[in-house]
Amino acid sequence: MTIITKKIAINSNKRLEIIDITEEINKVIDDSKVDKGIVNLFSKHSTSSIIINENEVGLVEDMENILKELVPDENSYNHDIIDNNADSHLRAMLLGPSETIPISDNKLDLGTWQSVFFIELDGPRTRNITVTIFY
Amino acid sequence: MTIITKKIAINSNKRLEIIDITEEINKVIDDSKVDKGIVNLFSKHSTSSIIINENEVGLVEDMENILKELVPDENSYNHDIIDNNADSHLRAMLLGPSETIPISDNKLDLGTWQSVFFIELDGPRTRNITVTIFY
Amino acid sequence: MTIITKKIAINSNKRLEIIDITEEINKVIDDSKVDKGIVNLFSKHSTSSIIINENEVGLVEDMENILKELVPDENSYNHDIIDNNADSHLRAMLLGPSETIPISDNKLDLGTWQSVFFIELDGPRTRNITVTIFY
Repeated sequence: MTIITKKIAINSNKRLEIIDITEEINKVIDDSKVDKGIVNLFSKHSTSSIIINENEVGLVEDMENILKELVPDENSYNHDIIDNNADSHLRAMLLGPSETIPISDNKLDLGTWQSVFFIELDGPRTRNITVTIFY
Repeated sequence: MTIITKKIAINSNKRLEIIDITEEINKVIDDSKVDKGIVNLFSKHSTSSIIINENEVGLVEDMENILKELVPDENSYNHDIIDNNADSHLRAMLLGPSETIPISDNKLDLGTWQSVFFIELDGPRTRNITVTIFY
Repeated sequence: MTIITKKIAINSNKRLEIIDITEEINKVIDDSKVDKGIVNLFSKHSTSSIIINENEVGLVEDMENILKELVPDENSYNHDIIDNNADSHLRAMLLGPSETIPISDNKLDLGTWQSVFFIELDGPRTRNITVTIFY
């Protein structure tokens, strides 16, 4: 197996922000010249996630709202005594830190309505994603 | 690394339907002759998911019910102005579009009570899954 | 590709228990001598999960609490007629059975605040995880 690893940085501007990173990942794959393989996207933080869904502005708002409904901002969490971001950690637990996606024709082999999103759950911050291409 | 890619189609019959695809995936692995490796199953849709759990008829009903409890059908979602399936997208966000599973003895290396399910969240439709075997 | 597979056993002591397995996985990677690659951790059970988050004692309690809030212990589940653990299965469905993580410098390439946890959802039991390293 050949492995290509690239670290990319994402800057968020809000506490909860859903950022489309599809083009940025496709740029890394394009630079790698890999035609067919698999890519793992891994966010190195316990208050962020990577998901795949449709990039429609109303739906992105719905995603933010459902995360706040399932894990309310204020809920007398134990972790908030240490660091006031238990809600961020618990939302990250539900969504997970990574996605593994096929590569075909030198790009992400996504469906028509699929985009890759980085979800900032405790921003604004600069975040790091490890992109691992294997082929 | 050697990669084998196969596209398979799944036909759903209901709006929300949980379909056991274990045998279909094992058939692809059997055809590949791969004895030991890893397989990534990736659903190319933003209103469907792939999960692993037990295939017991009552539990499958419980899975459908909990998805409807966590993400209600009707909730004045913003996306419903564009396309009346925000609930489908949000359920897919929680469950994710893929699973990555070890292969051993030329089949999925699952536990005794584990089956692989495709979850249709906005059917009935014909859906596409990319099966990527690497070894 | 070269694949190294190792099975590890985890003993749980409670019905719902969140167990940090980071050191145990790093030991397997250390023994493998693999410097750079990817590791897939797969729990062979439909009532357990593997997640990545911060190991802080209050947060671990918050994780247990949110799982019980999202999927209540008692909810007249259909599966409970067969086997009294529907809640365990549904929590496992939300969290998933596996994680795929980059390896760098002969260890898990995690962020500063990330630990790998096995989540026992129907213990106490002895559980099996398949560790697949590919490089």
